[in-house]
Amino acid sequence: MKQSKWIWKAGDFERYHSMLLHNRRTKTSLYYPPMWRIDGPDRNVLFYKIVNLEAPETLTVYANCKDASFLVNGVRYAAGETVTLMPGRNFIKLTAYKESGFPSFYCVGEHFASDETWRTGSWGARDTFVGTNDMYTELWDNPEVFKFSYERIRPVSVEETEGGRLYDFGKECFGKLIFEDAVPAYAEFTVICGESREEAMDAANAIVHIPVKFENGAFTSTSVAFRYVFVPAVGEYAFSADFENLPLPDKGEFRSDDELINRIWEVAAYTLHLNAREGFFDGIKRDRWVWGGDAYQSYFVNYYLMNDNDIVRRSQRILRCAEPMTAHVNTISDYTFYWISAMWEYYFHTGDLAFIRSMYETMLSTMTFVRGRLDADGLYEKRRGDWVFVDWSKHFDKDAGPICAEQMLLCHAYECMAKCAALMEDRENEELYLSLASDLNVKINERYWDEEKSAFVDDYKTGNRNVTRHANIFALLYALTSEERRHRIIEQVIKNPEVPAITTPYFEFFELDAMCTIGEYSYMTDMLHSYWGGMLSHGATTFWEEYFPEKSRVENYAMYGQPYDKSLCHAWGASPIYLLGRYALGVRPTSPAYATYEVRPNLMCFGTIEGKVPTPNGIVEVKMSRESVTVLADVDGGTLVLGDRTYPIEKDVPLTVTL
Amino acid sequence: MKQSKWIWKAGDFERYHSMLLHNRRTKTSLYYPPMWRIDGPDRNVLFYKIVNLEAPETLTVYANCKDASFLVNGVRYAAGETVTLMPGRNFIKLTAYKESGFPSFYCVGEHFASDETWRTGSWGARDTFVGTNDMYTELWDNPEVFKFSYERIRPVSVEETEGGRLYDFGKECFGKLIFEDAVPAYAEFTVICGESREEAMDAANAIVHIPVKFENGAFTSTSVAFRYVFVPAVGEYAFSADFENLPLPDKGEFRSDDELINRIWEVAAYTLHLNAREGFFDGIKRDRWVWGGDAYQSYFVNYYLMNDNDIVRRSQRILRCAEPMTAHVNTISDYTFYWISAMWEYYFHTGDLAFIRSMYETMLSTMTFVRGRLDADGLYEKRRGDWVFVDWSKHFDKDAGPICAEQMLLCHAYECMAKCAALMEDRENEELYLSLASDLNVKINERYWDEEKSAFVDDYKTGNRNVTRHANIFALLYALTSEERRHRIIEQVIKNPEVPAITTPYFEFFELDAMCTIGEYSYMTDMLHSYWGGMLSHGATTFWEEYFPEKSRVENYAMYGQPYDKSLCHAWGASPIYLLGRYALGVRPTSPAYATYEVRPNLMCFGTIEGKVPTPNGIVEVKMSRESVTVLADVDGGTLVLGDRTYPIEKDVPLTVTL
Repeated sequence: MKQSKWIWKAGDFERYHSMLLHNRRTKTSLYYPPMWRIDGPDRNVLFYKIVNLEAPETLTVYANCKDASFLVNGVRYAAGETVTLMPGRNFIKLTAYKESGFPSFYCVGEHFASDETWRTGSWGARDTFVGTNDMYTELWDNPEVFKFSYERIRPVSVEETEGGRLYDFGKECFGKLIFEDAVPAYAEFTVICGESREEAMDAANAIVHIPVKFENGAFTSTSVAFRYVFVPAVGEYAFSADFENLPLPDKGEFRSDDELINRIWEVAAYTLHLNAREGFFDGIKRDRWVWGGDAYQSYFVNYYLMNDNDIVRRSQRILRCAEPMTAHVNTISDYTFYWISAMWEYYFHTGDLAFIRSMYETMLSTMTFVRGRLDADGLYEKRRGDWVFVDWSKHFDKDAGPICAEQMLLCHAYECMAKCAALMEDRENEELYLSLASDLNVKINERYWDEEKSAFVDDYKTGNRNVTRHANIFALLYALTSEERRHRIIEQVIKNPEVPAITTPYFEFFELDAMCTIGEYSYMTDMLHSYWGGMLSHGATTFWEEYFPEKSRVENYAMYGQPYDKSLCHAWGASPIYLLGRYALGVRPTSPAYATYEVRPNLMCFGTIEGKVPTPNGIVEVKMSRESVTVLADVDGGTLVLGDRTYPIEKDVPLTVTL
Repeated sequence: MKQSKWIWKAGDFERYHSMLLHNRRTKTSLYYPPMWRIDGPDRNVLFYKIVNLEAPETLTVYANCKDASFLVNGVRYAAGETVTLMPGRNFIKLTAYKESGFPSFYCVGEHFASDETWRTGSWGARDTFVGTNDMYTELWDNPEVFKFSYERIRPVSVEETEGGRLYDFGKECFGKLIFEDAVPAYAEFTVICGESREEAMDAANAIVHIPVKFENGAFTSTSVAFRYVFVPAVGEYAFSADFENLPLPDKGEFRSDDELINRIWEVAAYTLHLNAREGFFDGIKRDRWVWGGDAYQSYFVNYYLMNDNDIVRRSQRILRCAEPMTAHVNTISDYTFYWISAMWEYYFHTGDLAFIRSMYETMLSTMTFVRGRLDADGLYEKRRGDWVFVDWSKHFDKDAGPICAEQMLLCHAYECMAKCAALMEDRENEELYLSLASDLNVKINERYWDEEKSAFVDDYKTGNRNVTRHANIFALLYALTSEERRHRIIEQVIKNPEVPAITTPYFEFFELDAMCTIGEYSYMTDMLHSYWGGMLSHGATTFWEEYFPEKSRVENYAMYGQPYDKSLCHAWGASPIYLLGRYALGVRPTSPAYATYEVRPNLMCFGTIEGKVPTPNGIVEVKMSRESVTVLADVDGGTLVLGDRTYPIEKDVPLTVTL
């Protein structure tokens, strides 16, 4: 028999888990809803498949709900029944209704095994292929339960303090707290978790409060973030936790002779893994939501670490609401633009054309939404309900009409849209978006460039001529301006200490990526040492949402006006993995799906580096010292580039070049 | 304290109950899904209200779900808490998530009592007012449970037959079957219900099979339709039923000296009541769905019987899917056109402007959907996925390009849309729809009129010149053609026995309404006697989905190729109430909401008639014999019209005119 998979309406799996996860946030124990629209999965579904059979075969249809039946050439059967199909045309329809959760089917048969070849009836919209996920291939699998792995962990130390016990798990963790063998067997109390010791000991200000209720001497909590756990005096019990995670193997590796950098790489990887869940989360303590900008960066790190396609696909689906689109992704305009760009970049790194195809209509309707809200000049200007984020920065005015950074992201999104249109052989939209990109590029360079300041200014309407790093970084990163202006930006903005520094790892990603793009590697490695290294010097076991080198450790825990609201495990801190893989190991695709790629290793400040970069079809291994470079790849298409010399990389044959 | 009501996102109450009811259909015991998209209610909601208080007051917020909290001027509280609000501006936000059912709030307070004055945050769409329903005003009410009434009923006879017992409840019923005091106390078997004796005794072909499972000697079924119930031999038990209904009082009345007509009126009223539930159903045995054309007619009967506004509002909301509209109402183009027309006609009969306002955006988007699917000439032509219904009739070809009857319904819908636009003071759309109506009217009269046949033909593309009653009836009913053509239609089509007769009470409604409009009353009363009287002569206790006078009783039970698939309690059989109220008692509004109305009583074939017609603000009572007419109304605005004489009707003063 052919392998079956659970099938559902494409998007419902992600929409369901998105609905659950976005409604899980609490502050202390209060429900704290997302500020954007959350769409649930469909309750009624219709799937179908038509095959001309040459020989009889059987079909058994299972559903995950009681209101389900199926039609075999017009005759209706109850879910659970087995029908023998006769040679000739067989038209099978599956129908179901499920109010809670989402309706799914599992069909066992030869030609009608449930899989991606089934289609969804859409009642007047466009019929599409059903959704599946390779985690749910067995009849006993339940797609309404996300398939995490669990590992029992125990505190590394415990301290009697303030009339209770403070447990330390040694590093940031995520999972369910478990009390067992408790005496007394019935008790109610509140446990306080902390990413820091200070937070766990400050009930009034800690984010995670867990109402515990012993029954029969036991209690298991919902899944939360913690390193420290403060338990008030409640008698005796055994205390541990179920560490909850998605076991995505690391395909990327990096080692150097610089132990601080190695540690940064490892902490970055751990930070990303903790946030790699139903989708890529922002952080695991507070929001635990999927945010477009945060996810966008996690994709790039993912391509150099786990290289898991499915988590990118899930995140992209989670980020986009159902039709009709009425607000930007997470209400943030920049996040909508990243969402579009991420589609092309996903294809470029993975070659997964099927996903682009399945989302293409949604991309078009996203662009229709975006273009319906531009100003008369075609520039994006903040509308009621929009959040212009760019970065946590006090240095620019986001209400100053159309701001430069947003136009740059929009311009890049247009370019990516055009490339996806080309992929879909949709010439009309390809031309449209190429011309929108080129028109917008001209406007950006005309309106925002300040000749005297040698910089793009934040806005053009106020006359403030304010310069921040953000738009200038995008200009470099997305190649939006002339060579001459690029050089002036580097000198007058990026390397100019008078232009306020970036304060978030989030925007450091863009800054360092841009600087590496133009060969300013020491700027990047210096920042790794000082900025990421700075967090480690404060005892960080995961990277933070924001970091101010000039502030004390405990001062750094504060954010949003609250002493512990800062997330200490924020995915956007994981960019060193991407930066080191792409620019130190130097491995990057030069055509979609790594059909061709280059290896431009760069020793930077290191004595030796070595590591691996995953590609869709294999691994590229790079080793470099001052004396030589060795590359070994189990995929075709590679070229080693050293200065102005190139060396073809033969699959499975080590290539060593003496320097 | 001000009276509070449960509040929810407008439309969610109807959408939730619609989802439940449309997923309840079974054939034998197999789940039988609707063939159109069913949208569920929202899972996440945000409601808000702002009031400047002059004095402190308290606010208590309750929610029907655990994931709920509320913000008082930015400070979050748990649902269930009481907060004292201070004088000045108070901004209250309610937020909740509920996966199953739909999230609702109940707020107790003076200025913040939950009611229609609260608004729904829409995350980028248009904020609207919340939904409420006057059935749910107490904290212990549960809007997820539809408020039916129950009355215990017992069979009027029982017969031992075919190894079991056949119970007869004496007339068509709807409700839960109840077994009590059963010995043996545990048993499993299947009960067969029938609208007819024959159906109940034919397990292979009966629609309603009930799997019964005695536990502790008792069992209660889900709600189903039945008159006859066959129970196999299973021992002893007490058998009864809980008759389930919505207790809408009859405000309309009709009596004459013709007992057959009186009986028809009563059976019609009972038929409608059985179908008057969450919305107006088609029938109670088989589909139990809300269909646009069926509901459209029930509205008219309702205006002359219960005159309940809420059931019309609920039905209209149930019929229209969520945005985006991707298919016609029930997939049927004519039903979409009726849906639009029904809005104006509802306003005309009730004066409920608030409902039109709350649905106006939805009306516009419905029209956008409709107009996006017309042919190049602006005519409606069947598209993929559309069902052109018009009527169950074998006499015309619905695939013959744009057919005449559909254009006529569309034309009427344009006119009604224009009137609603005028109500909303939306001059642009008023003009647009007036001009669309007038253009379409010209095309109808140019393309479909056949001079030689003195009739509108069904289509103009095939050249078949086929004449059926349907389009010609619409031409009369909606005044779509000249006086001269109207007369020719009456003589050459309606009164022409060679044009196939209507076979459904559904289309008889339109035919008789049209005939009464033009004063052909005896055509109507003859049809009541023969057609509706014909069903009674077969022992009908409710009116049927379709009726062929030339067929036997049992032959008449068959439909859709199955011996008992015909519904014997079909709401569209209730039109005599409307016809007798409007044309015999002669009471009808002449301006919206009965601000002015006329009473044009007509004795027709009767010796005496008397009855009542409800209006939004009171009752109009009419009594007529060959000698005199008496009118008594407790509302202003009436005029008695007798021939060419008019008499103002003074409120609360009996007006008698001798003939």
